[in-house]
Amino acid sequence: MRIVVVGGVAGGMSAAARARRLDENAEIIVFERGEHPSFANCGLPYYVSGEITDRADLLVQTPESLREALDIDVRIRHDVIAVDPAAKTVQVRNDAGVETVAYDALVLSPGASAIRPPLPGLDSPRVQTLRTVGDAVQMRDTVTDGAQRAVVLGAGFIGLEAAEGLRMQGLAVDVVELAPHVLPPLESEIAARISAELTAMGITVHEGVGATAIESGSDEDVVMLADGTRIPADVVVLSVGVRPDTQVFLDAGVADERGALIVDEHGRTNLDGIWAVGDAVISTDRITGLRRPVALAGPANRAGRLVADHIVNPDTARPIPHPLGTAIVRVGSLTAALTGANRSALEAAGIEYRTIHLHADNHAGYFPGAVQMSLLVHLRTSDGLILGAQGVGPDGVDKRIDVFATAIANRMTGPELIDLDLAYAPPYGSAKDPVNLAGMIAENVLDGELDLWYADQLDEPGYFLLDARSREEYDEGHVDGALLVPHTQVRERLDEIREAAAGRPIRVYCASGKRSYLAYRILRQSGLEAANLSGGILTLRAVHPELVP
Amino acid sequence: MRIVVVGGVAGGMSAAARARRLDENAEIIVFERGEHPSFANCGLPYYVSGEITDRADLLVQTPESLREALDIDVRIRHDVIAVDPAAKTVQVRNDAGVETVAYDALVLSPGASAIRPPLPGLDSPRVQTLRTVGDAVQMRDTVTDGAQRAVVLGAGFIGLEAAEGLRMQGLAVDVVELAPHVLPPLESEIAARISAELTAMGITVHEGVGATAIESGSDEDVVMLADGTRIPADVVVLSVGVRPDTQVFLDAGVADERGALIVDEHGRTNLDGIWAVGDAVISTDRITGLRRPVALAGPANRAGRLVADHIVNPDTARPIPHPLGTAIVRVGSLTAALTGANRSALEAAGIEYRTIHLHADNHAGYFPGAVQMSLLVHLRTSDGLILGAQGVGPDGVDKRIDVFATAIANRMTGPELIDLDLAYAPPYGSAKDPVNLAGMIAENVLDGELDLWYADQLDEPGYFLLDARSREEYDEGHVDGALLVPHTQVRERLDEIREAAAGRPIRVYCASGKRSYLAYRILRQSGLEAANLSGGILTLRAVHPELVP
Repeated sequence: MRIVVVGGVAGGMSAAARARRLDENAEIIVFERGEHPSFANCGLPYYVSGEITDRADLLVQTPESLREALDIDVRIRHDVIAVDPAAKTVQVRNDAGVETVAYDALVLSPGASAIRPPLPGLDSPRVQTLRTVGDAVQMRDTVTDGAQRAVVLGAGFIGLEAAEGLRMQGLAVDVVELAPHVLPPLESEIAARISAELTAMGITVHEGVGATAIESGSDEDVVMLADGTRIPADVVVLSVGVRPDTQVFLDAGVADERGALIVDEHGRTNLDGIWAVGDAVISTDRITGLRRPVALAGPANRAGRLVADHIVNPDTARPIPHPLGTAIVRVGSLTAALTGANRSALEAAGIEYRTIHLHADNHAGYFPGAVQMSLLVHLRTSDGLILGAQGVGPDGVDKRIDVFATAIANRMTGPELIDLDLAYAPPYGSAKDPVNLAGMIAENVLDGELDLWYADQLDEPGYFLLDARSREEYDEGHVDGALLVPHTQVRERLDEIREAAAGRPIRVYCASGKRSYLAYRILRQSGLEAANLSGGILTLRAVHPELVP
Repeated sequence: MRIVVVGGVAGGMSAAARARRLDENAEIIVFERGEHPSFANCGLPYYVSGEITDRADLLVQTPESLREALDIDVRIRHDVIAVDPAAKTVQVRNDAGVETVAYDALVLSPGASAIRPPLPGLDSPRVQTLRTVGDAVQMRDTVTDGAQRAVVLGAGFIGLEAAEGLRMQGLAVDVVELAPHVLPPLESEIAARISAELTAMGITVHEGVGATAIESGSDEDVVMLADGTRIPADVVVLSVGVRPDTQVFLDAGVADERGALIVDEHGRTNLDGIWAVGDAVISTDRITGLRRPVALAGPANRAGRLVADHIVNPDTARPIPHPLGTAIVRVGSLTAALTGANRSALEAAGIEYRTIHLHADNHAGYFPGAVQMSLLVHLRTSDGLILGAQGVGPDGVDKRIDVFATAIANRMTGPELIDLDLAYAPPYGSAKDPVNLAGMIAENVLDGELDLWYADQLDEPGYFLLDARSREEYDEGHVDGALLVPHTQVRERLDEIREAAAGRPIRVYCASGKRSYLAYRILRQSGLEAANLSGGILTLRAVHPELVP
């Protein structure tokens, strides 16, 4: 059997390597258009930053090492330009010309290419992307050659990694994001901390505004924004998204959805003997059922392995799992991560949900180095199923998001998080881990024991606002019109509160929602209508910094 | 309703606080024998080490703060000396005498006390335990007063934390453990790295040997070991285990098993109106069904909360979960952790299992700071259910153990770990996370695609040993009698290998098991009988350091 793989890296190389481990006799050929069949895609920004010093570290495998260890025939600078599914052949172009190669099984792993918006001046030589080892080397060379000002178009994960890398190299960096905030897949209250961190790193953040043109000059380019801002730049990083690089395969008759290849649960396309994996393939979101390509290394690796299973052992191969879209990024001293669905996906899918917020230490507060993370969890209203979780903070966010990802994969409900037996010693967590705390809040909300109100309801009329913090905190800044009653005084000042509220529902808040929860319970049990601010002032301030001085 | 809680800290205070949040009208009294109703139990060793500088940081709540925030009546230095379950009263002794207090609901949270083995000389004033804030203060005072030599009896979690704390304060420290290795709940191949770390920290480790006597002198004590060793000491830390502190309640008729209180799924004892939680209660292990007390803060907190739920809302309270016994400890630069069952528990319960080992980086190998952790996973032979997992390494162990704990709670099988969508960016993990890799190995083993052999089978006769590493590694040290065939040469040297094996099964190894797996697959597919060493030389060396020079 001859297995032909089009495109290396995560999906393609995983398929090729697994196929060899399962079948010593198969002939396995990988055609890679570029120079490197297996490189550290996700490491490129860290080569730009200088954290990865040697470009050789970016090369995970070489054609030689793949031949030696796995007897895989890797042919670089080989571009597959046509497929004949009836004849089961591909046409491949290389320096020597075009050849026709037959296959028994064909695995398409072409990946995605950078979206190039219709922006005047985008063909300036100062505009670069960051998709290949060559791109990363070029970008670092640009720095070495004296570039001092960079504009990054697109503040997604890779855009921010590139921005940080260039900033670490000493450049003045502007980041431009058309969406209302950086890292658009994250909710605004999580992204706000990243935006603040970028500013603290000396990066200028332009949110909710797009570039309109790039004026290319002899000494510099100038990036023009829709709000009239003009930003001079020695290098412009284009990172506004990717699209599946699939035209050759669509021409051959592979079925697609908006350019992404459609596959079944084993990675099979509509054409006999042709599988597809990776960024070029459309996935069905596990939570929402929405269909979209997922450009992540983990799912690509996994799918590659399972496609090889299906080619070699079609009767026993497991189906390819629907991805959760778990993703993470380091920005300065912070980590931001998410798993599962976000608000916009839930709303697009018409799923009713509740959101809870909390702020909790990475480990025991009394142990040195305790730092606070912010978490939010989306829960299905009908039954408390965990739909998604997000977090941001200086430490411990990756761990909690991985626990949430595992919980979601197992279709846990929020309250079931209470019972998770997580590893606790003071340097690592708390007896009640942030994940357990999220479960407790979820249970209280679902039981009706805790009514929440949200930062975006601040403008609603007709309620009475109670600040349950200390006098000192109140004096440093509070929401306009709030009555200060520290949570320890609520019992003795009940009559005063009842009178001041004058029949209006009471909305309580404190810094994080914990003390105000105690106040809230007293009010509720005294027969007053009350609700507690989800996430407290910390969340309110992230969403509406102007409202809390 | 009056709720009386006997004993504060994790279980008791969680019950009291939750009861107040649920019921503003209940009268809640906590009798605490000691000085502190709510202190950082798990923080005590870090006060000894000096990492926690201020003893006030150990006090989570005070009687005053509990009254103010939660209207809980905390009475310290109040020792409950009798219970009359028929009259529903307790007798309490304090400085002023003995009083009788009635209850509607009684929550027993007496905790455990240090086991004092029948060791001559154990009543020496230099022998200390580390169970209370007072103990921690006394131990640090001992250091301040010039103690220079410490012997720690018992190398469990707290024993090692105390040993490290005293070592950090500059003392010469000997650790004595009767079991074959430190941290007895961990498997030997995991504990070996901790033992080596202790040695590297300058701590002398005595494993598999007990103390026989303590000779108390005027200037020093001398700890005598069964092997004849004599260790002079200025302070002796007794940390050989705890036992439930329950005599008062047994006298009142509370049913017990070996001194631990028996409770139902809601924490109810056999006596009407009496609940119990925490270290004094017997639990049923979730994996093995074995019954034992679990002295961990997380489960105690959780049970306290659920007992309050059951007292206030008996119709809707969820059952108390069976603990997994997840635990973690920092030792020097390493973290060791476990969740679920270990070998001895599985063997005691008669559960058939397979073990897999792996060594994997905490994050992408090409990103600075990559360090290796060692993991092992026990799987049920019949169906691959994950029974337990353990890990040790400088970074990232806590995260993986928490993911395993969540997986076990959801009754995942090993192969299902492959599909977990964990957060990947180079500073945090790999596209194939160590947890995913464990899943892949599990799948290969369960499918029969991978036959393992284990370090403890090295002495078996009649097999042929193949070293699949490089010439350089082989020359640095290899298992006696092994033939060197680097994995990249196995294909071309198949005839030579077949001849040398002469019909014997072939056992392959490399450093971690990864390259030898490739070699193994080639051998197997060539019709040879072969097996791959689980965990490779890294695991072999941990168990049998003498075998690999």
